[in-house]
Amino acid sequence: MHQTTVRVAEGALDANQTIAEANRADFDAAGVTVINLMSAPGAGKTTLLERALEGGTGDVRVGVLEGDVRGSLDADRLSHLHVPVTQINTDPAFGGECHLDANMVRAALPQVPLEELDLLVIENVGNLVCPAEFTVGEHHRWMISSVTEGDDKPLKYPLMFRTCSLVVINKIDLLPLVDFSMDRFLDNLDQVNPSARTLRVSAGTGEEMGSWRDLILGSA
Amino acid sequence: MHQTTVRVAEGALDANQTIAEANRADFDAAGVTVINLMSAPGAGKTTLLERALEGGTGDVRVGVLEGDVRGSLDADRLSHLHVPVTQINTDPAFGGECHLDANMVRAALPQVPLEELDLLVIENVGNLVCPAEFTVGEHHRWMISSVTEGDDKPLKYPLMFRTCSLVVINKIDLLPLVDFSMDRFLDNLDQVNPSARTLRVSAGTGEEMGSWRDLILGSA
Repeated sequence: MHQTTVRVAEGALDANQTIAEANRADFDAAGVTVINLMSAPGAGKTTLLERALEGGTGDVRVGVLEGDVRGSLDADRLSHLHVPVTQINTDPAFGGECHLDANMVRAALPQVPLEELDLLVIENVGNLVCPAEFTVGEHHRWMISSVTEGDDKPLKYPLMFRTCSLVVINKIDLLPLVDFSMDRFLDNLDQVNPSARTLRVSAGTGEEMGSWRDLILGSA
Repeated sequence: MHQTTVRVAEGALDANQTIAEANRADFDAAGVTVINLMSAPGAGKTTLLERALEGGTGDVRVGVLEGDVRGSLDADRLSHLHVPVTQINTDPAFGGECHLDANMVRAALPQVPLEELDLLVIENVGNLVCPAEFTVGEHHRWMISSVTEGDDKPLKYPLMFRTCSLVVINKIDLLPLVDFSMDRFLDNLDQVNPSARTLRVSAGTGEEMGSWRDLILGSA
């Protein structure tokens, strides 16, 4: 029984990989760089996207694919930025899927104007577990970890931290008020992903928002 | 293909329900009240448990079942409280399950001294999606939502908020520093679960920790 379960899971992963590769081929054919942006709920994905894009994006044509269990709150928040935003809701399947998979992204691609973009940011469902397990064809896997979540998170959700090349450490303005040691966080991150790049920011106060904007627009 | 997927999911849910009922029967036979405590990563589940239990638990014999993808950091944090703590790691299955299910809890029950307990708190994996979909045989489903996560969360993760009878709103000491309207949060909660009870606390400053302690120990 257990063996059967494992075989099904592996089959599902293989199918995801196959579809992710098809997505990647489409992204590459259109010359679009794709970032899979992940975090826990409320870590600041949407706010950081707003901060990066609200001053205009120069020569870089940016689009956003929003993944949510239900609703379009985040897409609505981004609507004033005048970039194409496409919404995926995971709700129809099984009470709400906790992650985007390659097939959900593939199903949304007809609504994404790839030929008019240089950069597509996919905002995943807020979750530190399953999004790490499903590639969607992205070029870059980035995550946001807010200091209010605690400095133990790299050890508690190792796959997420291990599979991301950039960890944006958000809400650093709250550091004096929360039980979070930056040294401990960086040590813990080093244990699971010594090559991860980090950027310490506050979307709330605007600290290092220029660096964040340069990083995201520069990835295209 | 889509139909097949849905059928498998429903079969899995039914199996979970069957095992959850077996767990519930064991809890009831032993006279143990069980709370399934859920939240996003870093909302404060472990800290709130520490605050509730650190002053002693009077006549109430409390045990904790810790669910984590990997490691025993939270169980280690609770070890000084001198209550029996049992660790479940979801990691062996499929890169880390993002929730506890009834069968994982059942597999751990031989390590839980039910006959010596009045109250068992199950700390679920930090995630606002899938834990809501899997009952484990609990009597009460409670969740913690921290103000740093934003006031839109009831609308973004409706099943979680809908299936919990108590929503503990944590980190209220940070309210002046974050973009969170309590009125908006309560309005959003009312839309998905008008009968939910709420308690506003700060585990950091200790505000309303007495009420929280009374609530959790009084549930036994």
